[in-house]
Amino acid sequence: MKADRIHNFNAGPAALPLPVLEEIQESFLNFAGSGMSVTEISHRSKWFDDVINDAIARVKRILKLNDRYQVLFLQGGASMQFCMVPMNLMGDGDSADYVNTGTWSTKAIKEARIQGKSINVVASSEDRNFSYIPRAIPFNAGAAYAHITSNNTIKGTQWAQFPDTGGVPIVSDMSSDIFSRPLEMEKFGLIYAGAQKNMGPAGVCLAIIRDDMLARTPEGVPSMLRYSTYAEKNSMYNTPPCFAIYTVQLVLKWLEETIGGLDKMEALNRKKAGLLYDYMDQSDFYRATAERESRSLMNVTFRLPDEDLEKTFVAEALENGLGGLKGHRSVGGCRASIYNPTPLAAVAALVDFMKTFERKNG
Amino acid sequence: MKADRIHNFNAGPAALPLPVLEEIQESFLNFAGSGMSVTEISHRSKWFDDVINDAIARVKRILKLNDRYQVLFLQGGASMQFCMVPMNLMGDGDSADYVNTGTWSTKAIKEARIQGKSINVVASSEDRNFSYIPRAIPFNAGAAYAHITSNNTIKGTQWAQFPDTGGVPIVSDMSSDIFSRPLEMEKFGLIYAGAQKNMGPAGVCLAIIRDDMLARTPEGVPSMLRYSTYAEKNSMYNTPPCFAIYTVQLVLKWLEETIGGLDKMEALNRKKAGLLYDYMDQSDFYRATAERESRSLMNVTFRLPDEDLEKTFVAEALENGLGGLKGHRSVGGCRASIYNPTPLAAVAALVDFMKTFERKNG
Repeated sequence: MKADRIHNFNAGPAALPLPVLEEIQESFLNFAGSGMSVTEISHRSKWFDDVINDAIARVKRILKLNDRYQVLFLQGGASMQFCMVPMNLMGDGDSADYVNTGTWSTKAIKEARIQGKSINVVASSEDRNFSYIPRAIPFNAGAAYAHITSNNTIKGTQWAQFPDTGGVPIVSDMSSDIFSRPLEMEKFGLIYAGAQKNMGPAGVCLAIIRDDMLARTPEGVPSMLRYSTYAEKNSMYNTPPCFAIYTVQLVLKWLEETIGGLDKMEALNRKKAGLLYDYMDQSDFYRATAERESRSLMNVTFRLPDEDLEKTFVAEALENGLGGLKGHRSVGGCRASIYNPTPLAAVAALVDFMKTFERKNG
Repeated sequence: MKADRIHNFNAGPAALPLPVLEEIQESFLNFAGSGMSVTEISHRSKWFDDVINDAIARVKRILKLNDRYQVLFLQGGASMQFCMVPMNLMGDGDSADYVNTGTWSTKAIKEARIQGKSINVVASSEDRNFSYIPRAIPFNAGAAYAHITSNNTIKGTQWAQFPDTGGVPIVSDMSSDIFSRPLEMEKFGLIYAGAQKNMGPAGVCLAIIRDDMLARTPEGVPSMLRYSTYAEKNSMYNTPPCFAIYTVQLVLKWLEETIGGLDKMEALNRKKAGLLYDYMDQSDFYRATAERESRSLMNVTFRLPDEDLEKTFVAEALENGLGGLKGHRSVGGCRASIYNPTPLAAVAALVDFMKTFERKNG
């Protein structure tokens, strides 16, 4: 840990790799010899073309995308995608399947229904407080798509495997676990992800879309809400969020060149999460809240014996340089978000602190 | 000019005040003692609350807004506003007036029509290649609003005074001249502005909206496309573009505390533009393209005797540390964008270079 920096377990915006932050800082007054800050260069310049094209090339390489997929950078976060997905992918008379695994799925369903779209909630884990990922889901063969949330930040659950939909394209919100593990891309028609957890700062949303999805948009959808507008203009129909895309580019470079790609990233993520879950599983003091086979490798949610202890835990952790451990305000408890950029050393430091805290208060 | 930085005349993204860039750089690894980068702090933290609340308070102070106006931060740039404005402000049976003063107005009109809205183009300057701002416009008394583009970056024209619409609220795209001069706010129902010209980096759009406009949105509009969603949640219904808002905050602080507010900003802007126009008016070599009474104080568009000379001019200027002087690709020629952050010294350096170039080539 750099002298005055903390270990950051925020759920998003979240920690970024220190070498990425250092590179941004270093070049902030003069980007790539342009004599301008990266925030001051034109998005129509060779400098920015190099940034966005490198970012797109890295997404394609990292996820091993074939030519049917396009990589887009949008604005408005995953929340804007909740409305853009049904607006673009459903024609008259279509219906779509949604799996409800918590707050974000619920919002996605709501935004489809606001538009009068026909939505079938084919599975939900609400019966056990969204503590698990449903199995054996009766997807409809004729659905326009099957929408899932791959990782649920608030309840700390994650799809370990992606479901068999019988050929219906999966649309997945992957805001909180994109690039955390390899993907079988052929299952997906569209993946979208706000950047501010696994790949960058808030203010840009990545979308990876298959050609047949791009062609679906009905008449009457405004330009900025059509995926094809971004696909046809390399995400530069209008001025894109340049700084956020630049940061994503650097994080992807770090993922490829420092970590070594998705297989290694997944192994490291399993190791990090394993440290926490293994410790909690042998403790009577801490209790992981998600059901075991649905546990998230990204957001480790847990409880202490009572709420007062949880408050003390969060406060003392911060005094010890461990920040962002409070659970989401809608559920309480504690949460350690350990996305790609969180180093193993940060998780080890957290487990050490948890042991000390248990000894003192257990 | 800092040793290795150029004078930046880009049309947007554009120059930012050097002290702002230096403050961002300085604190980039540890924001406000948080131990985190500003890109890593939670948008639900006290640190970010302070940022966004200060930015909003400054907007209100700088523009002397009364309590009827709310300050919102959105994403998608002005282009997203082209669709959100008619989507939110027009009910069934409404029609709206638009004035067409060039590329951006044309796009605003197009995005309203895509949605099937009833639009009257009550004036246009297309007859003389958008080189002027129309006068004596027959606004319709019953219009839902009157839409104008206050400054036209491509053709270099600007509304010197805002029109009398007979009480119809003006909706104005002010992306390229917001905060460049005081405004009679009572004329406006809604102002919107992408940040990347006068107030920050690309990736955030400011909207200032009057309460009666907020109440108009019809049913069926998705949450992220409703102004009220942002108004009700202090622009934090979902994760906002934190870094871009932070930069806007610092630019507004610079505008208030270093420049001294809008009266002083306008005086400086008039002085900067005056240097360029006065020089060109006595030259037979350079020709300002906008009609005199419609000239922009922000984007000074001009031609040289022929296109080869224009190419040489742009190239030699860059060799002399003066960047971004090429005209928009749709119109050619030259353009010096001299937004708020561009210092007088940069404009003086440009005029010096223009004189030398004229002597050599005139």
